Amino acid sequence: MKSNQTAFYFTSADEVEAAFYSAFEMGDIQLMEAVLAEQGVSCIHPGSLPIIGREGVLDSWAQILANLDEPVFRVERLSHTVADDIAIHLVAEHIAAGHQLDAETSLVLATNVYVRQKNGWRLQRHHTSLSSVLRDEIEENDLAITHQAPNTLQ
Amino acid sequence: MKSNQTAFYFTSADEVEAAFYSAFEMGDIQLMEAVLAEQGVSCIHPGSLPIIGREGVLDSWAQILANLDEPVFRVERLSHTVADDIAIHLVAEHIAAGHQLDAETSLVLATNVYVRQKNGWRLQRHHTSLSSVLRDEIEENDLAITHQAPNTLQ
Repeated sequence: MKSNQTAFYFTSADEVEAAFYSAFEMGDIQLMEAVLAEQGVSCIHPGSLPIIGREGVLDSWAQILANLDEPVFRVERLSHTVADDIAIHLVAEHIAAGHQLDAETSLVLATNVYVRQKNGWRLQRHHTSLSSVLRDEIEENDLAITHQAPNTLQ
Repeated sequence: MKSNQTAFYFTSADEVEAAFYSAFEMGDIQLMEAVLAEQGVSCIHPGSLPIIGREGVLDSWAQILANLDEPVFRVERLSHTVADDIAIHLVAEHIAAGHQLDAETSLVLATNVYVRQKNGWRLQRHHTSLSSVLRDEIEENDLAITHQAPNTLQ
């Protein structure tokens, strides 16, 4: 059963983020619609030009979801900024092509911007990129970055 | 003459952004230091893994500036979000390798996050990516995206 958009009210950026990646995993475009902000929407898919505006972004996701084979996301939070009505999460998306144990995993880096609207938190911007660093190297070094305590404004 | 960090107080995200790209053009690492926020700093260079933390980001910029040959930036604002203490700019960086008229131009897409600290606005996060779309195609279509009125929270 597909989700009912009107049933969703996300009380935090974390809730929207979880719903966003669930929508990917379930191929649920209606949940994607519920997740997405009403204004200021933009999306850069890996290696692509920006798509600006809610309609274009939803169209691109509909195409992507139609061609995905039950991906499994492990989302690793690397750093984040939180303010009253806006939150920015820098995450590493470890994406397996399916539920098989030996499924190929790819790494996508994403800056996700969440905003609080009158009807709750939503995803406003999603900028992704691929790293040219080899996957084996990444796994050995666990992203080779320093994790840092979250930054809170105010 | 290099810039004196203590002399800088940026009154808006736009001012920081102008200073950030000027620092690139002038190879001025001290201005880069002045531009960068104190906390929550992260940077993803094109095709690279994230660098998290002010020190690591400054080190990476010092290396980049040492190897740049007077680049010229034309920064095209595509979309932005503004709140009281935080601003997000989605920009296209059209970078020419030098001042020659026939200089090769590359396109980098960037999500820049600016925050207001007690001592003014600073750049906190810089996530960049390259598009695999051919440069000629981009020039023909002028990025092939729809420009949108800025989004203002509150």
